[in-house]
Amino acid sequence: MKPVNIPQGTRDFNAVTIYKRNHILNIIKNVFELYGFQPLETPAMENLETLMGKYGEEGDKLLFKILNNGLNDPKNISKAASGFQKLMEGKTSPELTERALKYDLTIPFARYVAMNYGQLTMPYKRYQIQPVWRADRPQKGRYREFTQCDADVVGSTSLINEIELANIYNDVFTKLGLHTYQLKINSRKILAALAEQCGGAENMMSITIAIDKLDKIGIEKVKEELSQRGLNADQISIIEKYLNISGSNKEKLSTLQNMFANNETAKKGIEEISFIIDNLKSSNLTIDFTLARGLNYYTGIIFEATAPAEVKMGSIGGGGRYDDLTGLFGVPGVPGVGISFGVDRIYDVLDELNLFPDTLQANTKALFFNMGDSESLFSLNCMQQLRSKGIACELYHEKAKLDKQFKYADKKSIPFAIIIGSKEIETKECTVKNLKTGEQQMVEIEKLVEFFKYNNETLL
Amino acid sequence: MKPVNIPQGTRDFNAVTIYKRNHILNIIKNVFELYGFQPLETPAMENLETLMGKYGEEGDKLLFKILNNGLNDPKNISKAASGFQKLMEGKTSPELTERALKYDLTIPFARYVAMNYGQLTMPYKRYQIQPVWRADRPQKGRYREFTQCDADVVGSTSLINEIELANIYNDVFTKLGLHTYQLKINSRKILAALAEQCGGAENMMSITIAIDKLDKIGIEKVKEELSQRGLNADQISIIEKYLNISGSNKEKLSTLQNMFANNETAKKGIEEISFIIDNLKSSNLTIDFTLARGLNYYTGIIFEATAPAEVKMGSIGGGGRYDDLTGLFGVPGVPGVGISFGVDRIYDVLDELNLFPDTLQANTKALFFNMGDSESLFSLNCMQQLRSKGIACELYHEKAKLDKQFKYADKKSIPFAIIIGSKEIETKECTVKNLKTGEQQMVEIEKLVEFFKYNNETLL
Repeated sequence: MKPVNIPQGTRDFNAVTIYKRNHILNIIKNVFELYGFQPLETPAMENLETLMGKYGEEGDKLLFKILNNGLNDPKNISKAASGFQKLMEGKTSPELTERALKYDLTIPFARYVAMNYGQLTMPYKRYQIQPVWRADRPQKGRYREFTQCDADVVGSTSLINEIELANIYNDVFTKLGLHTYQLKINSRKILAALAEQCGGAENMMSITIAIDKLDKIGIEKVKEELSQRGLNADQISIIEKYLNISGSNKEKLSTLQNMFANNETAKKGIEEISFIIDNLKSSNLTIDFTLARGLNYYTGIIFEATAPAEVKMGSIGGGGRYDDLTGLFGVPGVPGVGISFGVDRIYDVLDELNLFPDTLQANTKALFFNMGDSESLFSLNCMQQLRSKGIACELYHEKAKLDKQFKYADKKSIPFAIIIGSKEIETKECTVKNLKTGEQQMVEIEKLVEFFKYNNETLL
Repeated sequence: MKPVNIPQGTRDFNAVTIYKRNHILNIIKNVFELYGFQPLETPAMENLETLMGKYGEEGDKLLFKILNNGLNDPKNISKAASGFQKLMEGKTSPELTERALKYDLTIPFARYVAMNYGQLTMPYKRYQIQPVWRADRPQKGRYREFTQCDADVVGSTSLINEIELANIYNDVFTKLGLHTYQLKINSRKILAALAEQCGGAENMMSITIAIDKLDKIGIEKVKEELSQRGLNADQISIIEKYLNISGSNKEKLSTLQNMFANNETAKKGIEEISFIIDNLKSSNLTIDFTLARGLNYYTGIIFEATAPAEVKMGSIGGGGRYDDLTGLFGVPGVPGVGISFGVDRIYDVLDELNLFPDTLQANTKALFFNMGDSESLFSLNCMQQLRSKGIACELYHEKAKLDKQFKYADKKSIPFAIIIGSKEIETKECTVKNLKTGEQQMVEIEKLVEFFKYNNETLL
């Protein structure tokens, strides 16, 4: 028999992994809610036309498309054949596939806002934590199914929202123990001003794409790319000077101000950034004029959060402001700003820095040993008492050597063993063994709940 | 522009719906964990060969298959064409599709157990709450994406597990307020005995399928179907007598005992049921010999939970014991028993009986009114204080007429408005308005946290 397997690039999550992931997700959810964000969930599938063309040509290729059902039904066969023809020609083929798995959370969110625009209370603040799917080549840290975790405010142009989102980053990373995370900010308006100084707005895309690669390929290669994209030596020299701006946040701003003294777009960008810097009390915030955020639709402030420097991980979150979320779906003029957390990367960072709490894995507090049929049935009743007080417990499923039962407790990291044999039923006392320390004591069966309430607060 | 939409049979969940769904899911999760069950999550996609043939011919047709990527790549085109041919002939077509969305949680669970058998602590008790997908025709209450919610114990034949699972049903339904739910039990061994009395084991399937329809089609139609399936008048008369067994649990058992006096299979089934009845202290438990649980792979005790009689809903959960979970995946001899909760139906039942707590929708506790730029920035700092103590709050995003700000608070069911204008900043007191009662009072800004801590316990 062929060994059974799961699809490449997908993962099963066992209990330990789920508890650790939930530690991250619960902190994020809780902070989102403290800021008045409300949850939204959209289906795994979207209509293909909702997704196609939204992620560039490369993105279209990475969609997981779902085959229509009943294709070999006699009445569908000729339609299916013409659909297959279209598919082979690289065209859309509604005869074969009308749906795909969602590729990110932003487009389904935009689709939701467009569909429900009249009903939503504006500004609408939503968060969404769901899996997305991409047919990327799997590699270390890159999966075909992974969780995205977004918060957006739409229907407001106020920079207060940017401050709130930066505070959310701060609260979440602090609660996770990542005190030395960095939050880089820039404004797309400043990149637009740079483009204006370097041949005009039509160079904005080229400049953004090239700058975005700075971290990976270094300044010389960026200059080469800019040259290939048709920028001249003077323009490239301005860009290099721009990328070299350094110093404290205040120094960077003043250097930039001098460099772009008469540019109105730059002036707006500088105002935006100054507003954030002046009103956000966080030492983790750094202006980074090299931040570009790739091909995204951002138009104002952009963010990128990076892991503490001692971990080689880079970005663990990002976001920014956009002018028009839902225009693509027939509802123009809905501006917004959003951020996202890279859950898988945050997981790896916490693992590497040993920042997951030890208590996450303890679940069942007590294993009742199975000492025979009537003893087990007696134990079942004690267990219902404990459970009704919120104390998780189990009974070993069959009479077995104590060794075997200890081993089960050990493998499941259960901290206490409780032994109720015929003698214990008579004396109404049971043996409780602490499996970490080996200590053993007699506890009145009626007082087991108290015993665990006490131990829950002190030992566990 | 064509109006944008979501795929037929799928749903967006807004905040109110999510809070209500989470009310159900959190209670279920919490109870599962009290009984020592641990979470498992498997990917949305499985390899097609993992799923095909596991749900009958009808099930195969209802799988959402995922199109392979890169089919129109020149090097793949001829393979794709032969794959399309196979698809049209109703054959499996790995050239076109190698993966599908999961159809239930049981087969992925079996696949997981088979893949990880050596590493799992047996008995392995897992719960799993995830969406599944079926290309069924959508109708009221039937969706193409819906959540399943399962708990299974594998690697143990002890009937203690059945008792624990019945207790889980009791705890969950009680916590949800469904005190008059019914838990019906039967044993497949009794149905097997019935088949033995009626022509032999080869009639087991026919009898089970026919009996399973009793609720829907009535006794006369069941008798017709049995006759069509080749059972003779004597046999049908035995089955009718069996289906008519009535009385208390004890009376039913003794009638059955007389009816199947010399049948060893029946004897085992009766022992199983008696063990459960004798050791489960729940008045919600009813023996129901007409319970069959359709086409499933069950071999021992079977369960079905039904909603309180005042709601016309029928089954809100079900499960049973099986002999061999993972044999299909090359690991034979893993017996188990499991139950599941019908989350969508439970949701409808709670809605109809008005059993969702009122507090679910309150989230943000206070809206800080926006009285201008400097006042807002002052408020932002107060808000960080409240949030650090776990009190969710928001600032209205821009200066606007008070009316508009009150309306926002009202739409989001925010219970308190806080007004901090320039005067309030000077006097260090703010106006707090209870939006339910209209009461208004001055509170020292420094004491806002205390105010909400107190109100959280009393008013909210």
